[in-house]
Amino acid sequence: MKNEDFNCPIPLNDADCVLMAHGGGGRMTHQLISNIFYPAFRNPLLEQDHDGCVFPVQKGRMACSTDSFVVDPIFFPGGDIGDLAVNGTVNDLACCGARPLYLTAGFILEEGLPLADLQRIVQSMRKAADKAGVQIVAGDTKVVERGKCDKLFINTSGIGVVAESIRIAPDRVQPGDAVICSGPIGAHGITILSARESLGFETNLKSDTVSLNNMLSRLLKNIEEVHVLRDPTRGGVSGTLNEIAKAANVEIILDEAALPIPDAVRGASEILGLDPLYVANEGLVLVILPEALAEEALVVMRSFPEGEKATVIGRVEKKGNAVVKMRTLYGNYRIVDMLSGEQLPRIC
Amino acid sequence: MKNEDFNCPIPLNDADCVLMAHGGGGRMTHQLISNIFYPAFRNPLLEQDHDGCVFPVQKGRMACSTDSFVVDPIFFPGGDIGDLAVNGTVNDLACCGARPLYLTAGFILEEGLPLADLQRIVQSMRKAADKAGVQIVAGDTKVVERGKCDKLFINTSGIGVVAESIRIAPDRVQPGDAVICSGPIGAHGITILSARESLGFETNLKSDTVSLNNMLSRLLKNIEEVHVLRDPTRGGVSGTLNEIAKAANVEIILDEAALPIPDAVRGASEILGLDPLYVANEGLVLVILPEALAEEALVVMRSFPEGEKATVIGRVEKKGNAVVKMRTLYGNYRIVDMLSGEQLPRIC
Repeated sequence: MKNEDFNCPIPLNDADCVLMAHGGGGRMTHQLISNIFYPAFRNPLLEQDHDGCVFPVQKGRMACSTDSFVVDPIFFPGGDIGDLAVNGTVNDLACCGARPLYLTAGFILEEGLPLADLQRIVQSMRKAADKAGVQIVAGDTKVVERGKCDKLFINTSGIGVVAESIRIAPDRVQPGDAVICSGPIGAHGITILSARESLGFETNLKSDTVSLNNMLSRLLKNIEEVHVLRDPTRGGVSGTLNEIAKAANVEIILDEAALPIPDAVRGASEILGLDPLYVANEGLVLVILPEALAEEALVVMRSFPEGEKATVIGRVEKKGNAVVKMRTLYGNYRIVDMLSGEQLPRIC
Repeated sequence: MKNEDFNCPIPLNDADCVLMAHGGGGRMTHQLISNIFYPAFRNPLLEQDHDGCVFPVQKGRMACSTDSFVVDPIFFPGGDIGDLAVNGTVNDLACCGARPLYLTAGFILEEGLPLADLQRIVQSMRKAADKAGVQIVAGDTKVVERGKCDKLFINTSGIGVVAESIRIAPDRVQPGDAVICSGPIGAHGITILSARESLGFETNLKSDTVSLNNMLSRLLKNIEEVHVLRDPTRGGVSGTLNEIAKAANVEIILDEAALPIPDAVRGASEILGLDPLYVANEGLVLVILPEALAEEALVVMRSFPEGEKATVIGRVEKKGNAVVKMRTLYGNYRIVDMLSGEQLPRIC
C-alpha cells in the first residue's frame, strides 16, 4: 500500500515513530490526524471536525455495539488488527439484525510504534469499512509510554439501523430450529497462534476475518423468521452455543459429522491440544431458525463468498435443559461445555 | 462503597485479581460480567444480552462520540478513571448540542489488576452515568498479560439526540461573539500531575471532572443562538480556542485579567513551568455566542454548581486571521499558540 493511495500529504519516513507528543492534543496530534487518519478515513461526517459527529436518523430502531481489539500479533496471515476491528463491530451489529452505518475508532498507541505500521492498519480499516459499506465518523487517539501497552489497541463502536420486521434474540430459539454455520471453523484462532513467533509453528491457514453484514442483510430480507444470529468469536462455536442454550433454556445437539473443520485446523488443534469448537472465528456466523427455512437460508448464504460453505451443524431439541451436546461420529453423545478460562489469549 | 450497594452476588476477596482467563469468553468472563459489571450497570437495554443493544429512535438528528481513557494514576483526588470516562464522553456529546442517552464501555484490563479496584471504578461509572442521566447499554472486556497495559484502559462511546433548532459548529463563530468559560481553569491537569507519586508534589486541588450536559441542555433550551460549545480537555483552553480560531478563521482575544485561574493552579504551574492555559480540564466548557446574549447565558450557567463561576474570558474580534491573542495585565498583546507536543502525558 502506497501513501498515494490515500493522499497522505506528507510521505512517511521509515524511522518515524509514535511519540508521546502525538497524544498531547496539540500540533503533533493534529499532524497525526491530518497525515494518517484523515487521508484514510475522510468523509463529510468525520470532517465536521468536532467533539463528535451529528447525523440524521429516521424513526425506528437502531443498534449499537462496542469492541476493543488487543490481538497479538497486530499483523497476521489474512488480516491485521485494523480490519479485524472494523469487521468485528460490523459483525456484532449485523448479528443484532442491524444494517451497520457508522463506526467510531479509538486508538491507544504505544510510544515508539512505527508510523508506517499505524498507517498500514488505518488503511486496512478504511478498506474493510468500504467493503462493509460503513463510515468511520469519529475517532480518538491516546499515546502511552513505551511498555505501557503492546504496540496498539483499537476500540471500535458502531451504530446501525434495525428493520421493523426483525426480532433477533437468543430467547426466541425453539425446539425444531436448525443451527447453521456459515463456514469453516477455527481458522482465525489457529492462524493467530501460529503467527506468534515464539511458537515456531506454521500452517497455511489464514484468518477468516471478513464482514458478514451484506450476507446477513440479504438473509434477513428473504427470511424474517431468523431467531438468532451470533458470530462465534472468543469462546468459539461452543461458547456461543452455550450462551444461546442458556438464554433460551434449550438443548442444542451438534452433529460431529457435519462440523466444517478444515484438516489444517484439526491437525494443528491436535498438536496443540486445542478443541476447534472453542477456537475463535472472525468471519463466521451461527444462524438459528426454524428447520423448514434452513434450505432457503443455505441457498442465500451460499451465494456469498463468506457463506459459500454454509451448512447445518445441529438442531435445537427440547426446552427445559440448557445444554449443548454433540452426537459423535460413533453415534453416542457428549456434553460440549463452556470453557472455564482461556484457550488462546489475545486472539482478537 | 460496599458491594451491597449494587447487589454484587459474590463478595470480593481482597486478593482477587484479574486473570487472563477473565478475557477468554468462557465461564470466567461470564463471572466477571455477572459479579462486577452487571450489578453496577444493570438496565433493560444492557440485559438484552446480545452482541449489541437495540433501542428505539425518533426521526431527527443524533450525535455520536468516542474517547479512550488512559489516565495515570487511575484514582486521583476528585475522581477516578471511571467517572472521567463517563463524564468525558457525556461532555463530548453535550458539546455537539446533544442530549446524551446511551454509552458503551470497552475495558482493557491488565492481568493482576485487583478486582476490588475494577469494582470501585465500575461503580464510579454507574454513579456518573446516573448523575448525567445516561445508561451504559453495551460493553466489552479484554484482558492482556501483565506489563502489556497499565492497570486498565477504558473506552466510552456514546449516542445522543440533537434538537432540531440547534446548530453548533466551529465555523459559526463570528466577530462580536463572546467567549464564556464555565469555571476555574487547570484543576484536572495539575491534580493528576500532583497525584503521581514520583513527583513528590502536593496541592489541595481536586479534579474538576463532572458532566456538563444538564447545564448545557438548559443553556441551549434558553438560547438557541449558541455558536460553539467545546470542553477544553487535552490541549487546554488554548488548544481548544486555537482549533476554533482556525476552523472559523477568526481572531480571538483573551483578557488575562478575566481568566479564572485558581491560586493553587497558578502556584503549581509556576513551580512546574506549565502554563495553565494548556492544562487539561475535565469539567469545563467554553461557550461562544453573540455578545448580546452573554449575560443571559451567564445567568443560566451560574444557576448550576458546575457553572457557578462562569465568566466571560474573551471576545472574537475579526475574520481573516486565525489566531488567539491575550491582552495581558499590562495592556499589551501576546499570541497564545497551540502547543506542539505534550505538557502532561496521560491526563485523561
